[in-house]
Amino acid sequence: MNQNTLRQLLESVAQGQTSIQQAQDDLIHLAVEDIDYAHIDHHRSLRKGFPEVIYGEGKTVEQILGIMEKMVGQEQVVLITRIDGEKAQIITRRFDLAQYDKDARMVIYQQKPLQKTGRGIIGVISAGTSDIPVAKEACLTADAMGNKVNSVFDVGVAGIHRLFAHKDLLEEATVLIVAAGMEGALPSVVAGLVNCPVIAVPTSVGYGVSLGGMTALFGMLNSCASNVAVVNIDNGFGAGYLASSINQC
Amino acid sequence: MNQNTLRQLLESVAQGQTSIQQAQDDLIHLAVEDIDYAHIDHHRSLRKGFPEVIYGEGKTVEQILGIMEKMVGQEQVVLITRIDGEKAQIITRRFDLAQYDKDARMVIYQQKPLQKTGRGIIGVISAGTSDIPVAKEACLTADAMGNKVNSVFDVGVAGIHRLFAHKDLLEEATVLIVAAGMEGALPSVVAGLVNCPVIAVPTSVGYGVSLGGMTALFGMLNSCASNVAVVNIDNGFGAGYLASSINQC
Amino acid sequence: MNQNTLRQLLESVAQGQTSIQQAQDDLIHLAVEDIDYAHIDHHRSLRKGFPEVIYGEGKTVEQILGIMEKMVGQEQVVLITRIDGEKAQIITRRFDLAQYDKDARMVIYQQKPLQKTGRGIIGVISAGTSDIPVAKEACLTADAMGNKVNSVFDVGVAGIHRLFAHKDLLEEATVLIVAAGMEGALPSVVAGLVNCPVIAVPTSVGYGVSLGGMTALFGMLNSCASNVAVVNIDNGFGAGYLASSINQC
Amino acid sequence: MNQNTLRQLLESVAQGQTSIQQAQDDLIHLAVEDIDYAHIDHHRSLRKGFPEVIYGEGKTVEQILGIMEKMVGQEQVVLITRIDGEKAQIITRRFDLAQYDKDARMVIYQQKPLQKTGRGIIGVISAGTSDIPVAKEACLTADAMGNKVNSVFDVGVAGIHRLFAHKDLLEEATVLIVAAGMEGALPSVVAGLVNCPVIAVPTSVGYGVSLGGMTALFGMLNSCASNVAVVNIDNGFGAGYLASSINQC
Amino acid sequence: MNQNTLRQLLESVAQGQTSIQQAQDDLIHLAVEDIDYAHIDHHRSLRKGFPEVIYGEGKTVEQILGIMEKMVGQEQVVLITRIDGEKAQIITRRFDLAQYDKDARMVIYQQKPLQKTGRGIIGVISAGTSDIPVAKEACLTADAMGNKVNSVFDVGVAGIHRLFAHKDLLEEATVLIVAAGMEGALPSVVAGLVNCPVIAVPTSVGYGVSLGGMTALFGMLNSCASNVAVVNIDNGFGAGYLASSINQC
Amino acid sequence: MNQNTLRQLLESVAQGQTSIQQAQDDLIHLAVEDIDYAHIDHHRSLRKGFPEVIYGEGKTVEQILGIMEKMVGQEQVVLITRIDGEKAQIITRRFDLAQYDKDARMVIYQQKPLQKTGRGIIGVISAGTSDIPVAKEACLTADAMGNKVNSVFDVGVAGIHRLFAHKDLLEEATVLIVAAGMEGALPSVVAGLVNCPVIAVPTSVGYGVSLGGMTALFGMLNSCASNVAVVNIDNGFGAGYLASSINQC
Amino acid sequence: MNQNTLRQLLESVAQGQTSIQQAQDDLIHLAVEDIDYAHIDHHRSLRKGFPEVIYGEGKTVEQILGIMEKMVGQEQVVLITRIDGEKAQIITRRFDLAQYDKDARMVIYQQKPLQKTGRGIIGVISAGTSDIPVAKEACLTADAMGNKVNSVFDVGVAGIHRLFAHKDLLEEATVLIVAAGMEGALPSVVAGLVNCPVIAVPTSVGYGVSLGGMTALFGMLNSCASNVAVVNIDNGFGAGYLASSINQC
Amino acid sequence: MNQNTLRQLLESVAQGQTSIQQAQDDLIHLAVEDIDYAHIDHHRSLRKGFPEVIYGEGKTVEQILGIMEKMVGQEQVVLITRIDGEKAQIITRRFDLAQYDKDARMVIYQQKPLQKTGRGIIGVISAGTSDIPVAKEACLTADAMGNKVNSVFDVGVAGIHRLFAHKDLLEEATVLIVAAGMEGALPSVVAGLVNCPVIAVPTSVGYGVSLGGMTALFGMLNSCASNVAVVNIDNGFGAGYLASSINQC
Repeated sequence: MNQNTLRQLLESVAQGQTSIQQAQDDLIHLAVEDIDYAHIDHHRSLRKGFPEVIYGEGKTVEQILGIMEKMVGQEQVVLITRIDGEKAQIITRRFDLAQYDKDARMVIYQQKPLQKTGRGIIGVISAGTSDIPVAKEACLTADAMGNKVNSVFDVGVAGIHRLFAHKDLLEEATVLIVAAGMEGALPSVVAGLVNCPVIAVPTSVGYGVSLGGMTALFGMLNSCASNVAVVNIDNGFGAGYLASSINQC
Repeated sequence: MNQNTLRQLLESVAQGQTSIQQAQDDLIHLAVEDIDYAHIDHHRSLRKGFPEVIYGEGKTVEQILGIMEKMVGQEQVVLITRIDGEKAQIITRRFDLAQYDKDARMVIYQQKPLQKTGRGIIGVISAGTSDIPVAKEACLTADAMGNKVNSVFDVGVAGIHRLFAHKDLLEEATVLIVAAGMEGALPSVVAGLVNCPVIAVPTSVGYGVSLGGMTALFGMLNSCASNVAVVNIDNGFGAGYLASSINQC
Repeated sequence: MNQNTLRQLLESVAQGQTSIQQAQDDLIHLAVEDIDYAHIDHHRSLRKGFPEVIYGEGKTVEQILGIMEKMVGQEQVVLITRIDGEKAQIITRRFDLAQYDKDARMVIYQQKPLQKTGRGIIGVISAGTSDIPVAKEACLTADAMGNKVNSVFDVGVAGIHRLFAHKDLLEEATVLIVAAGMEGALPSVVAGLVNCPVIAVPTSVGYGVSLGGMTALFGMLNSCASNVAVVNIDNGFGAGYLASSINQC
Repeated sequence: MNQNTLRQLLESVAQGQTSIQQAQDDLIHLAVEDIDYAHIDHHRSLRKGFPEVIYGEGKTVEQILGIMEKMVGQEQVVLITRIDGEKAQIITRRFDLAQYDKDARMVIYQQKPLQKTGRGIIGVISAGTSDIPVAKEACLTADAMGNKVNSVFDVGVAGIHRLFAHKDLLEEATVLIVAAGMEGALPSVVAGLVNCPVIAVPTSVGYGVSLGGMTALFGMLNSCASNVAVVNIDNGFGAGYLASSINQC
Repeated sequence: MNQNTLRQLLESVAQGQTSIQQAQDDLIHLAVEDIDYAHIDHHRSLRKGFPEVIYGEGKTVEQILGIMEKMVGQEQVVLITRIDGEKAQIITRRFDLAQYDKDARMVIYQQKPLQKTGRGIIGVISAGTSDIPVAKEACLTADAMGNKVNSVFDVGVAGIHRLFAHKDLLEEATVLIVAAGMEGALPSVVAGLVNCPVIAVPTSVGYGVSLGGMTALFGMLNSCASNVAVVNIDNGFGAGYLASSINQC
Repeated sequence: MNQNTLRQLLESVAQGQTSIQQAQDDLIHLAVEDIDYAHIDHHRSLRKGFPEVIYGEGKTVEQILGIMEKMVGQEQVVLITRIDGEKAQIITRRFDLAQYDKDARMVIYQQKPLQKTGRGIIGVISAGTSDIPVAKEACLTADAMGNKVNSVFDVGVAGIHRLFAHKDLLEEATVLIVAAGMEGALPSVVAGLVNCPVIAVPTSVGYGVSLGGMTALFGMLNSCASNVAVVNIDNGFGAGYLASSINQC
Repeated sequence: MNQNTLRQLLESVAQGQTSIQQAQDDLIHLAVEDIDYAHIDHHRSLRKGFPEVIYGEGKTVEQILGIMEKMVGQEQVVLITRIDGEKAQIITRRFDLAQYDKDARMVIYQQKPLQKTGRGIIGVISAGTSDIPVAKEACLTADAMGNKVNSVFDVGVAGIHRLFAHKDLLEEATVLIVAAGMEGALPSVVAGLVNCPVIAVPTSVGYGVSLGGMTALFGMLNSCASNVAVVNIDNGFGAGYLASSINQC
Repeated sequence: MNQNTLRQLLESVAQGQTSIQQAQDDLIHLAVEDIDYAHIDHHRSLRKGFPEVIYGEGKTVEQILGIMEKMVGQEQVVLITRIDGEKAQIITRRFDLAQYDKDARMVIYQQKPLQKTGRGIIGVISAGTSDIPVAKEACLTADAMGNKVNSVFDVGVAGIHRLFAHKDLLEEATVLIVAAGMEGALPSVVAGLVNCPVIAVPTSVGYGVSLGGMTALFGMLNSCASNVAVVNIDNGFGAGYLASSINQC
């Protein structure tokens, strides 16, 4: 339920077309819909500006379909994250407006894309080619939430001049997302060059003492630049969501 | 060197009062001043909007005094973090405009307070009484950087109704800082209630498997709310700096 | 061997139908039956009120069948935990009274369900949809052990009002089981609202620094609510067993 | 505020001696009292059956005194945990009814001891002499909360016959608390002998890979006995509180 | 090369049947034979009383065959550890005297079994059914090295009376091997009952915070009994080898 | 109570000098003496061949004195480990026969030294000068338990020829104890040269990723030599005790 | 782009055959070529003496082919590391000059082998047979970069005389690479014998507390020999690259 | 014993001034001198080109003095690392040629400084002011071992232009040492700019998840630049020693 749907309901009450009892039931019903294995939080687009997102991992395709059925009637945009190709195919077949991105492992259902809003542009940078899936998850999330997004990939610190060739992107961004694995040094270097907030996303790219992304994570939390915030390992979705929240607040 | 100082220098060049050679030397000199044990980054207030901050831990009082001497001529505000009372006393005696906050363990030197700017208010919340020093470091940093700051302390999840009594603070904030130790659950609960970005600061409050703040840190990085970013354990300064960066970008 | 079987044996001795030597042998024999790869602890239902439970992982189907053959003659209820579908099928084919639950990965053999006993109701709550298998293992265990069980799923802290909609369950329970992954904050919030003991079950749901459930586990052990006890990660069985022990002691 | 105080207030309203407005103000005021550095949760004894407990670590003696001043007017019993002797002395001098236990590092303020209630006896066992402070914190907490408590110390697994000499304590207890450091094996052995719930408290006693109690903690969470729940390392208070909650629910 | 082969060579030299040059070459050759991917240490049975053992993991079947070809001419007994069934089949087909044990994942090649030597009996105990593979690897190793071995399985601490039923084995052993997973408490209990050295073998049996055997390992290293030594997780072979070394020294 | 004391008691019963009731009381009393804060296990010298050892850390000097008072009447030798100089002084003043070793931090009380028994010599080796305290704790323990002990210090792997200069000690020992910190490689090298069991003692000597001895511990557990067993970090006492158990079994 | 290509371009400019504009474009273009998913750093062979190396893991075969197409026109040698056989086959079919090494999991493309340069010989040693793949990756890398390389495998510390049989290799090397898993002790022993720098490569060979190579890594970092530097676990490539850098600097 | 002393001894033998027996005794004696608590490896300057270095931590001042007495007769240079000011004062008073550096916590004893040798210059860089003590330990070690050393401090990645101002140092060095704490990113950036080997030294500077230098260490081991080797946390001495070994090999 977004603000439009709510306003229509209330106007309908004001004009006597919907009884107060009916409206009350609808509102309560919509706030939290219990479908046995999930409590859908329809209230969230009102409270938080964007509907609940479906975390695909550990859910059966039946559970995901059941949750989507309830949501598509209420929401313009529905996101499913961390979903493999096999499950995604079943979902995109059922819902024409849903599309799957293989790299980012996301399904995006849009009645029509949200209008671009927010104060500026969200810039997304990846340190290496292997970090692209995470970076792309951030791009797609921020885009689906109605933000302008620019990106540049594979500009890690071992050849720092590659980054300097993209000064424009650094300067024009309202908020930057930087995805990096291995030693995770890129967010520090980027944040030292800019004024805006930088969201660092550690990735699980690497081996040995990269420790599945822990080393990048800890490095980013220890950044000697102060305009850096960090999200969970490989959490491109969270980075995109947070960047949107910053860009639109 | 802030933007005013720079403009004055350039106007002085334009009016023939300063030779080009002299101006060039000044600019190069100011960019990075090498005083043997430190490279002072005078250029930073231009590049980043706020001067370099002195990290007090592991520096002798002589080193800190030396760095300050160079900075107070160039900057309106100088911050020293993680400095104990003994060293702070020597510094506040030397510089009249410097003040020490015992809780936050900060020295703040201000020629005059920066004008309040930015889009809104930064809200700072602490889960417990023991988390106050970290929360206060965030408050003072954000305040010194020219932001409006509101705060409320000791509203942790074990008595969640205490938080609900402060709905105003939650609703009016452009960005929220939430400091919590132990299980670090408060940022998730707060972020579930609001739309704006939430900066979670894990604190080292707790014992046993609080692991010096690691448990709170990891809990916050795993938040089931998506508008949460995390900084290092006890890093109130970083949270305040980042919130300012969000509020002013 | 339950208390009935024992009483029958002793009465049979008292009435001279069983010789003392025979009874002594039976009792010794039943106490620990050695079948080469397992020492079956028949004495346990006497000593502990419920027979030994078969931990399925790392046992061959032949070993499990062998243990069951010995137990079904002695016990009314036999539980097998952590058993995959393939092995379970072989077992349920052999024993008509055995049933398999796919979610909880348990086989439950019941001659007839135990009568419901205990002082009250055991409430089981899961934070997310993905935590349901663990929650269900707790439900089935507590139910099989003769307790009344109520449950509600997917009411995590990011939308805390979903929990408040189930106040009844919170208030009527003698003991609560709360399963949560990721940051594991739900048990703290629940325990802050109630008076009864809360058994927190961390689940391995999550990624990155959820560390396979360690973060949830540590968060729960650091709960700022004091009526919280914790069991091993994904140990729904243990939570159900302990809740039964609390409800029936 | 306990149930008596509340009943008196409501009766006073019923009899017209207190205005409704006044009563409403009192109730709101008492629910959460904000004294700048702490939100005192006076509502807790109503909601949870026992007032908020003051966690002494990381609080100044001034903060503790301030919180106590507010509480002693409302509550019959106030506990302060993890408080060193120096601070405790100041507090016991100010409040005549407060007493300090050096081993358990607790201050207990009692207008008069609570009447013993609950279904049975709480048994407290320590594995070694060095675990006594933790065990004693559990004893004192459970006692102050109105439970009958029995205890036996230094009966660890390396001389298991010492435990068997205390069968009575094992058999009569409604709930057992077992504190152990090093390898933390005692709770498993105890829980294998009894039917009632066992609360295991790992202690930080040991060296090398005892890892400050982590080894005992993990051992207890892996107990092959199923009627075991675990609390944080050295958390004698939590164990006592939880045992009381089990005994009185 | 065992002591017999050496004596024969030296006698042959003494009787003039082998030239000194030839003997010298043989001895050097035998000491370390380099077959490109392995340096076979033929000298070891002289120096250490038992030939080098082939660690199967990470070696191709061709490498293992190549090493065996060189060894069977020199040694009466050859062991291969940690070898899967597929590779083992190829080896047992090539060498008639080699046999595979599926549980212990070992190949044992014996021209004829070594005569039983040593001061006494090696006792092997497992805590659970799932620990049997590790216990069996210890049994087979100690047996192949010429020791008398007795064993008893599934006598863990949750039903400690099962252990007491095997007092004979405890009392007659010169050295005991105890394999246990989960909390790993059994070696402490056993070692508290006996006088002889106890070799504790942690196993990776368990889940959650059993941490792949780390918890059992750390528990055993912290044993409150002092006659306990520990080997690596799942290292049944090392336990058997060490027990043999103790029994035969 | 040692075997002599027991025999005297029983003979006294046989000769009618002690009543059966009296003997029974004595035996029960001696088996486990409860002095409130400790259960003294007098039975241990019968069961295990050596009396209980007092672990000094975490005990008050009063507790230690109380335990000693009870033990010196029953035992010929009493050991106190991990005791600082201050406490030790009080104890050695009270008991003339007690002596303190500053390096090993042990108090040894001996009515007269035990006769040297066992099959051979225990060799003790330290890798560096800083490992000597741990090595010495092993020497003194093994000596006090009645074994012949030889030692050599500071022969680590970085100058491996220093070890080779002590071949005699390696060859004559029935069991070897090797203490090493940092990378902990010495036990592997030693064990590769000998046939007898090697007890590896990791020490906390080192910095950075020596991790307080964890690196040495893990290295020793991974030894590519198979006749190596490991005890806890800095556990010189345990190594000496275990070596005695091997030498005397 | 190597130094020859650059010189040709500049001479062409000097001779008027290439316009300044064209040269400038070429240089910029070549410095960093952006092919959407990768920024190829053509400048690197000029800056670093060897072209960028393709890290195969986490890249699709299409991405690798795309990067190679761009590089083979510019470089004499191209390396791909950590690439499985399936992808390698597609690549070696497309590029005739590319060859795959199954052990080292590398593809090496060479127009013609680089001339051997550098001050001396790089020696490569492996502790066990299972460490050969890592050692071989080091050999191939150093060889492809134009160094003379000697190697010896399976000479670990459990039979230290095997190492002494290869004194020549130790003495003639300018720099040594030592690969070892398990306890990782070999680099310390080797470095104690030589004067030249030793690059230690921990491998993930082992089980239990080898912790996937962490134990070997930490052991090597704690080496009591001072001429030891360490690279990431299993990083044979990095060791070879660094050795080349030492040999050629 | 250095090469000159050896030559003199041998010439003295050749000229009949020293008997062969005497020379042999001297050589054996000098190789390893056993002074009870330490085996001094006099042979090391011959074998390794530099005498054994005294690791001060964990040694008493008496032990250090004893070792020095033996060394100053044999060596031109003696280093003591990790020694506090109090002990150092006693040593510098006893030996006139010994000097103490407070920052680096080293004592350097030099009969006369070694002549500068080696192929080039060793460059030493520190990321922050707090890293200087570690960087200085590297400088002093490399200098004492006879190398030319240049250094620049406080040029971390948050203001990367500070580094670029020192291009000369980067370009002229034969080998670089880079000390950095916190996220440890500087070595990667430096190594991406140069061709020579880079020795990365993680420092324990930082707080929270800097984990005492572990994060910097792991970051450096994961460097995306390949010419990076790593030494232990805070191991400035090892870095200087290794750099000397590279510069002089």
